[in-house]
Amino acid sequence: MEKENNTSTISVAMNGGDGINSYANNSSFQKVAVDGAKGMIREAIKEKLDIQQMFSSFPSKTICIADLGCSVGPNTFTAVQNIIEEIEHKYYSQGLSLQIPEFQVFFNDHVCNDFNKLLTSLPSERQYFAAAVPGSFYNRLFPKASLHFVHSSYSLQWLSKIPKEVEDVNSPAWNKGRISYGDAPKEVVEAFSNQYVKDVETFLWARAQEVVSGGLVALILPTYPMETLSEKSFPLSVDLLGTCLMEMAKKGLVSESEVDSFNVPCYVPSVKELEKAIKSNGCFGVERLELLKTKGGLDAQTISMHHRAALEGLISKNFGAEITDELFALFADKLAEYSHFYNPENRIFADLFVLLKKK
Amino acid sequence: MEKENNTSTISVAMNGGDGINSYANNSSFQKVAVDGAKGMIREAIKEKLDIQQMFSSFPSKTICIADLGCSVGPNTFTAVQNIIEEIEHKYYSQGLSLQIPEFQVFFNDHVCNDFNKLLTSLPSERQYFAAAVPGSFYNRLFPKASLHFVHSSYSLQWLSKIPKEVEDVNSPAWNKGRISYGDAPKEVVEAFSNQYVKDVETFLWARAQEVVSGGLVALILPTYPMETLSEKSFPLSVDLLGTCLMEMAKKGLVSESEVDSFNVPCYVPSVKELEKAIKSNGCFGVERLELLKTKGGLDAQTISMHHRAALEGLISKNFGAEITDELFALFADKLAEYSHFYNPENRIFADLFVLLKKK
Repeated sequence: MEKENNTSTISVAMNGGDGINSYANNSSFQKVAVDGAKGMIREAIKEKLDIQQMFSSFPSKTICIADLGCSVGPNTFTAVQNIIEEIEHKYYSQGLSLQIPEFQVFFNDHVCNDFNKLLTSLPSERQYFAAAVPGSFYNRLFPKASLHFVHSSYSLQWLSKIPKEVEDVNSPAWNKGRISYGDAPKEVVEAFSNQYVKDVETFLWARAQEVVSGGLVALILPTYPMETLSEKSFPLSVDLLGTCLMEMAKKGLVSESEVDSFNVPCYVPSVKELEKAIKSNGCFGVERLELLKTKGGLDAQTISMHHRAALEGLISKNFGAEITDELFALFADKLAEYSHFYNPENRIFADLFVLLKKK
Repeated sequence: MEKENNTSTISVAMNGGDGINSYANNSSFQKVAVDGAKGMIREAIKEKLDIQQMFSSFPSKTICIADLGCSVGPNTFTAVQNIIEEIEHKYYSQGLSLQIPEFQVFFNDHVCNDFNKLLTSLPSERQYFAAAVPGSFYNRLFPKASLHFVHSSYSLQWLSKIPKEVEDVNSPAWNKGRISYGDAPKEVVEAFSNQYVKDVETFLWARAQEVVSGGLVALILPTYPMETLSEKSFPLSVDLLGTCLMEMAKKGLVSESEVDSFNVPCYVPSVKELEKAIKSNGCFGVERLELLKTKGGLDAQTISMHHRAALEGLISKNFGAEITDELFALFADKLAEYSHFYNPENRIFADLFVLLKKK
């Protein structure tokens, strides 16, 4: 069960509340992915969800849905609403409107997530029973065979922990002067990649026990569509944030050794890396694996705000809350210099939609 | 489903956080009741919980437990632990240790409860999957036939709303100059009593759908062991708080008309009133209904702090947060004058343990 007090694991929670730096007000990027996946999720339910199969393997009058890494909303409510509407539509279209089951929705995120904000934001006219489930999705969170549909959008890029070799000054993978792997030596990239594959295997191991046979898992995650690790040598936006931290270290505003020992637990996989983890787990069939055609770009200021909503807690914990205003202002300037990174035409990353079916 | 934005309903949440006035630090009174009921709950599980019956009516590999009106802890964790240990013990004693199911525990309280505090306080070594469920237990909160054991301690005395006639200046039940019914005319007492019976019926109607056949509902609540309404004419501790508010009104610190229109949504029933509501619902058999032999008295200051942890939110909302320090200091003095009320030998109220089994 959930044991997040393990010191080697990291809990990253988005900024809570309603403020200017809150995730609730800085999640338009993730919204694009949620909106982009809407149609695919509807198709998944229409074509791949076999309710009779699920209920025959485990009789129930309720369909249980979990959103893993839900943060505080509003994206999670939109995603859940879409799933329920399509399941109801399936019953209606089959002339089974009188047999529509009840729905129970579990909203999951780390225990440090702002659940008060999440729960007070629940749509008042929702047609489901809501519950909040605290804990890392790299652990078991639900009883055996208790879920019918699992959704997780823009969460699986967060690692359970920083691979220990990148924090080890005696390792060739020591990540000195950087906070991510984008423009790092290949030993660092491999360490992050290995951790990612291990984490996805753990994620799928837990879900394999929790999801009923025939149940679906829909994942939306950032991916790096090219294949070999060597192609990855380019700075990520998080690497630019690292550059800003190093500039502040040069000015004496933060300690350089603190930057050396700090890493952001985030990894964007290639499609191949993800497929490897799914295959290694073996409990799910891949029903769909497709890049999302998401449109639109964000400006430097908005990207900086999004990173702040996601990383401020972690940065504050490591460097102190007093540096965050200056850091993210510097970051916005840096992003403006590197505008080709987030220009939609040149985007290095893509959003991947993965649909898994429990065997 | 949950619609707490209905203006006629009231959500009373205990003070959150860790502060001096928090419920977490001012719930020793409720702890006495939880501890006092421990043995009875263990007996209930030993003698009355027929797991085979529950699982045959609705196959499951999980035992689902709900604590309704859980607040922020720690009492809820103690209660849940006791239930799980005894169920596990039942399996062990029957030589079925390999068949011990998984446990899922739902912690419920109003949406304005401090769920962040609750979830970060969860025991790290718990042997159950935890979920928080926001909403009034006078609504449906869970899917049909999804719970095996419901626990609710010191919560069912909170009414869903103030009966409208006590707020109506043209009604004989208008509760002028008081905030409760203890020393009020019989019309006021009857209005509170009617609301209570209606609320308990609603509570049982919702639970009757949610609890599997054979499932248990354990209630611990304050009761007034005498029988007739007329015997109720005495001031409750909340009435003394009303007296303090009226004294403050005389000094111009609060408005008298605000006191006239304010009532605390709380009612302590006689055993007969409770039995009437259970019978009227008809879905549960009464397996046990017994006064708890709880010991120990609290001093005036502690009682005042307990009332503050429970009522500060409501008082602040109606009279402004700036009056609470003075009000509860005055209340502690008043309680010291009326020490015979809470002297354990003279206690007018008792704690009642009720065990219901779903037919």
